[in-house]
Amino acid sequence: MTETQPLTSAEARDLLPARTDGPAVAVRRLWDAAAGGPAAADAVVVLTRLDADAWARWRDAGVAAVVAPTGDVDALAESTAAGTGGRGGPARWAVADTRLALARLSRRLDPRPPIAAVGVHPSAVVDPSARLGARVAVGPLAVVAADARIEDDVVIGAGTFVGAGARVGAGTVLRERVVIEDGVVVGRRCHLQAGAVIGGDGFGFAAGPHGAERIHHLGTVVLGDEVEVGANACIDRATLGATVVDARSKIDNLVQIGHNVRIGSDVLIAGQTGIAGSTTVGDRVVIGGAAGVADHVEIGHDVRIAGGAGVTKSVPAGETWGGYPAQPLRRWVRERYLIGRLEAIWAAVKGRV
Amino acid sequence: MTETQPLTSAEARDLLPARTDGPAVAVRRLWDAAAGGPAAADAVVVLTRLDADAWARWRDAGVAAVVAPTGDVDALAESTAAGTGGRGGPARWAVADTRLALARLSRRLDPRPPIAAVGVHPSAVVDPSARLGARVAVGPLAVVAADARIEDDVVIGAGTFVGAGARVGAGTVLRERVVIEDGVVVGRRCHLQAGAVIGGDGFGFAAGPHGAERIHHLGTVVLGDEVEVGANACIDRATLGATVVDARSKIDNLVQIGHNVRIGSDVLIAGQTGIAGSTTVGDRVVIGGAAGVADHVEIGHDVRIAGGAGVTKSVPAGETWGGYPAQPLRRWVRERYLIGRLEAIWAAVKGRV
Amino acid sequence: MTETQPLTSAEARDLLPARTDGPAVAVRRLWDAAAGGPAAADAVVVLTRLDADAWARWRDAGVAAVVAPTGDVDALAESTAAGTGGRGGPARWAVADTRLALARLSRRLDPRPPIAAVGVHPSAVVDPSARLGARVAVGPLAVVAADARIEDDVVIGAGTFVGAGARVGAGTVLRERVVIEDGVVVGRRCHLQAGAVIGGDGFGFAAGPHGAERIHHLGTVVLGDEVEVGANACIDRATLGATVVDARSKIDNLVQIGHNVRIGSDVLIAGQTGIAGSTTVGDRVVIGGAAGVADHVEIGHDVRIAGGAGVTKSVPAGETWGGYPAQPLRRWVRERYLIGRLEAIWAAVKGRV
Repeated sequence: MTETQPLTSAEARDLLPARTDGPAVAVRRLWDAAAGGPAAADAVVVLTRLDADAWARWRDAGVAAVVAPTGDVDALAESTAAGTGGRGGPARWAVADTRLALARLSRRLDPRPPIAAVGVHPSAVVDPSARLGARVAVGPLAVVAADARIEDDVVIGAGTFVGAGARVGAGTVLRERVVIEDGVVVGRRCHLQAGAVIGGDGFGFAAGPHGAERIHHLGTVVLGDEVEVGANACIDRATLGATVVDARSKIDNLVQIGHNVRIGSDVLIAGQTGIAGSTTVGDRVVIGGAAGVADHVEIGHDVRIAGGAGVTKSVPAGETWGGYPAQPLRRWVRERYLIGRLEAIWAAVKGRV
Repeated sequence: MTETQPLTSAEARDLLPARTDGPAVAVRRLWDAAAGGPAAADAVVVLTRLDADAWARWRDAGVAAVVAPTGDVDALAESTAAGTGGRGGPARWAVADTRLALARLSRRLDPRPPIAAVGVHPSAVVDPSARLGARVAVGPLAVVAADARIEDDVVIGAGTFVGAGARVGAGTVLRERVVIEDGVVVGRRCHLQAGAVIGGDGFGFAAGPHGAERIHHLGTVVLGDEVEVGANACIDRATLGATVVDARSKIDNLVQIGHNVRIGSDVLIAGQTGIAGSTTVGDRVVIGGAAGVADHVEIGHDVRIAGGAGVTKSVPAGETWGGYPAQPLRRWVRERYLIGRLEAIWAAVKGRV
Repeated sequence: MTETQPLTSAEARDLLPARTDGPAVAVRRLWDAAAGGPAAADAVVVLTRLDADAWARWRDAGVAAVVAPTGDVDALAESTAAGTGGRGGPARWAVADTRLALARLSRRLDPRPPIAAVGVHPSAVVDPSARLGARVAVGPLAVVAADARIEDDVVIGAGTFVGAGARVGAGTVLRERVVIEDGVVVGRRCHLQAGAVIGGDGFGFAAGPHGAERIHHLGTVVLGDEVEVGANACIDRATLGATVVDARSKIDNLVQIGHNVRIGSDVLIAGQTGIAGSTTVGDRVVIGGAAGVADHVEIGHDVRIAGGAGVTKSVPAGETWGGYPAQPLRRWVRERYLIGRLEAIWAAVKGRV
């Protein structure tokens, strides 16, 4: 753990951004609102709601600052009972979006360096033909194969493998035991969790006279900038061309992305979802956990798919679908309502069956 | 493979526990009841049922002992046709619970040491600041990072990573290529299968002006004593605080446990199930394979969830749920029954539609 | 990347097999039919359909040869408008099965050697008691444990682990970070993608007086020849005896195969599907993605299971099932049709409820 530089009220104003009421303070750590007991004096806590009860709890808890919705902070200031004049209490940092404030505080106050040290660990195996940029960290027992190109400020975790001719963009973090197969392109400032496998062969076979013959996957995978991939998730390489995940899309743990899939930008795909081969997913799509999308379909921009849904056909832009097989959510909800009426229907007709 | 000390009838009496009828024997291996051909003379076979036919098969099969339900052994002894007086045959170890007997015999007769040797393999990378207890085994190419604390009798498999400041309790086995991220706490006598990732970042983002901003997960994961985690399963660290799996809970392969989830004690979660963020699961809950549980719900104590179910809301203690979306099992079964009546309903009403 | 020997029209005739019309050419690479822009002069493109429009596109695209269905090539030759006499254009390789042609071309023209070099990388840890055949490649930081037997022409990727006493058949490729647990038997010419775990302990416990007691899994896993296993997929070892996957079966990414499962030959199992313990799957079965099959059921030969299906009971040979819970496809389709009639049914009866 490294020492984090304290965050002052003045810096918080710009960072969150926030209006900072109360005392000027400096904080070093983010406090868990759900934790009991006394809080650290150098902590800030993010509250999604700050009413009189919450204030009663946090006024004397010992934290240096509370972050809360601007409306709540204003209401509190107006309330005589909850006023703080002359009674001290923590600074109030009023924000428009507590979740965004949490994200920014969590980044700013993260005490963990992404890896212990910069440089190539002596136990790592880096091919002489690989090119490493400035300030690259290669962890213990990592492998960087021939002709791989690692840009500046990349972190390669312990046991991670970067294949021949692969490219890893500046500022990207590959955590432990990641596999980047040969020729794969990873964008800048990406973050791949442990065990992710990018560029495995797609699942493609042809029926031959003596059983299935495998189609060698000669294509690759291209991840845009700021893509995140979860632990043990898999993104297969294309048969020819590339499987693509565009900028800023986030893929959770144990997700499967088939060969030749194209995922747009700013997409969120929750854990254990699978997207079968050659399907396209538009920009800003959100897919819940454990959903499945069939091969060769098109998911339009801004679509939302419910967790657990099984999508068997294309979904027009902007729609929300759920169910198995998936259908527009409103129809699914209506269908569930009607199924709930079956008892009554059955009672009404069974005399005549 | 090491030589296993033979298990005698006398020891079996206490271990299983069993009433041991017939000859006093010693066994060295567990025999597969489903295997054909002659059996080994130093083997014991566990039979879930021992009727006259089974006895005819196993009396002369060559095994040293059969384990069977007490009632079956008694019935057999009473039956003239199946009696063994003067005709030899294997020892009969009569038990109340053949599955428990199987578990205990399998442990007692397991010929595999958890790792080839005790000590730190010369190819492993152990930070000088890590503290290792007595009789710790660190396999080839494993990594133990700074300030990690490995208690007595821990086994760390080949290629496994233990992050900075992590703690692994006494007697725990981490098999190959496990990732224990920094700061994670693993209890005593836990068993983690290959490829499990404990403490990856949770899937949490805030909508920012230029796309999703990641929430750094500053919390950790705490696994209680005797927790088991399957191959390639993932348990994410909390945003703040801890994702918790309590004592004796067993998590199967490819399961996903989201950030800030709290799993009680003695829980069983079968393969490929996912539990989304901030959900709580009570004690003694049993969840079938490939089920999904939404975020921020509460699963009460002793709940049972059917395989494949999609749980979208809280489930009261003691209930059994199934379906997608999940509902009480009895209602789901009734719903399936009513759907099965739809053909008749349709026939009755379609003239009037 | 190595230089691929060019493939001539004459060789293509036997390999695909094809009738080769037009100029005799030699190709070095497979072109992506979906790619825009000019094509490489040494490329061949596989077209699933070759009509006049496609010919207009590819005649002048610069490729050396097009592969297309024989009927399409014949129709084109007969068409005056599309005739090529005197006008050049690429060779036409007429085939009965374009997918099979793609598979064979992709294999023949794959520029990637499965691993950079033959021999044991100096960073690998190979136990002196392990036996390695001829032309075996052991990648960086791989581990081959005691008494393992690696046959000729095996490729062991970076970071892969082969456990004590395991056997890997001739010509098999284990990519990066694969785990083959002790005693597991892998057939010949198998291909295992990165992160696969073969032979982890099955998920089996017995209820003991102080919580679940684990059943040690003393059995093994046996993979037949030409079996393929996807990235991060898991196949558990049997309690006793063996979990078996027969010859030529293909298992996709993140699939879970439970202990004591028996999978026949020529089976295809798509991504994220799970097969629970002790279930048998017949020959030539095809299972879509994210399906689940309960434990202790029998899936007959030639069965087809739809993606996302939840199979809770045995399926007779030759049938196609879908849904959750799964049922014969025709019944599931009918059920979906009847559910679609619920609005009308409800309208007809609700006055009388």
